[in-house]
Amino acid sequence: MPQLEFFFEFASTYSYPCAMRIEEVAAGKGVEVVWRPFLLGPIFEAQHGVADSVFNNHPQKGAYMWRDVKRICDKQGLPFKRPEVFPQNGLKAARMACVMLEEDQTTAIKFIQGVYLANFRAGVSISDESILERIIAEAGGDADHFMVRGASEDAKNALRTNTDIAVARDVFGAPTFFTPDGEMFWGNDRLEDSLDWTRAQASA
Amino acid sequence: MPQLEFFFEFASTYSYPCAMRIEEVAAGKGVEVVWRPFLLGPIFEAQHGVADSVFNNHPQKGAYMWRDVKRICDKQGLPFKRPEVFPQNGLKAARMACVMLEEDQTTAIKFIQGVYLANFRAGVSISDESILERIIAEAGGDADHFMVRGASEDAKNALRTNTDIAVARDVFGAPTFFTPDGEMFWGNDRLEDSLDWTRAQASA
Repeated sequence: MPQLEFFFEFASTYSYPCAMRIEEVAAGKGVEVVWRPFLLGPIFEAQHGVADSVFNNHPQKGAYMWRDVKRICDKQGLPFKRPEVFPQNGLKAARMACVMLEEDQTTAIKFIQGVYLANFRAGVSISDESILERIIAEAGGDADHFMVRGASEDAKNALRTNTDIAVARDVFGAPTFFTPDGEMFWGNDRLEDSLDWTRAQASA
Repeated sequence: MPQLEFFFEFASTYSYPCAMRIEEVAAGKGVEVVWRPFLLGPIFEAQHGVADSVFNNHPQKGAYMWRDVKRICDKQGLPFKRPEVFPQNGLKAARMACVMLEEDQTTAIKFIQGVYLANFRAGVSISDESILERIIAEAGGDADHFMVRGASEDAKNALRTNTDIAVARDVFGAPTFFTPDGEMFWGNDRLEDSLDWTRAQASA
């Protein structure tokens, strides 16, 4: 089955509805998803000189984004509450996601979706270890095991590698998709296009 | 018929495919389009301190935009060539569009689409008066009349009013749509959503 790479950031608002729907949409189009957690902070810092989100630096764009994401979630039947802290620090969660994706993809996807719901439905801290432990357990994972593995050098290296790949490919936001022939698509609203591109290439 | 306001900028790449398709898509959903030319330059200057496009200031985002717009135009069956000058100065064309829209909507829409094709298909200067004269004539308008009217105080005031409205409503990019109940939607890829919102409100 052709694969689509899905670069996502736990702090990213538009990555949330995307992460909740990508498996179903991709399956419907016969495409497999390769989940790639990465960090936007270092990218923003390299490209803009500030690690903060453009949505905080540009109030008009920020206000629109909050309204737009709410509408998207409403349409998708997803709960959404603007978190008090934005962007949240997703470093630990992203490292954990990296090792979980290697060891157990099904549990990893449930964990990733649980982290997004913690951020954008519950509005709790996704860098709090007790919360991450609970999300792992709710996803059906071994919390003790993944809390240790998620803090390992393997996890740090895996996340650094994904972020380095994103930088090398000129990623500037999330979610971002790459098709097997290297086409980049940016944004939850380009998911269908990226999958159609992947299918068209696979059958060409 | 319920109305959707369509704020567009002649320099804006994503406004081009939108301006070419909006009448047909809106008619299919039973919505009337209110065309509102405006200028992004003063908005960028007020919000970022620079009148230039973010696509020039942020190379990774700019490179992606050119590729993305090419894909969108390909999908829509529209010619597209990256112009040598970006963003072009659409001041005169926007003033002309304002008065044409008041006097003769059909000719005005043909003129507007002609200006976009001059910018993004032919790559010629859309501030060159001889080119504007030709586009008016090709749209079926009286070139002598509109060249004079387009430089009048009426035209200047109409464009200034549209831009002031856009500023007051926190517009930050183009195309931007407003529904009758004041919902703002940004981007060619939100056209369908903005029309669906307009319909839903009208039948509520």
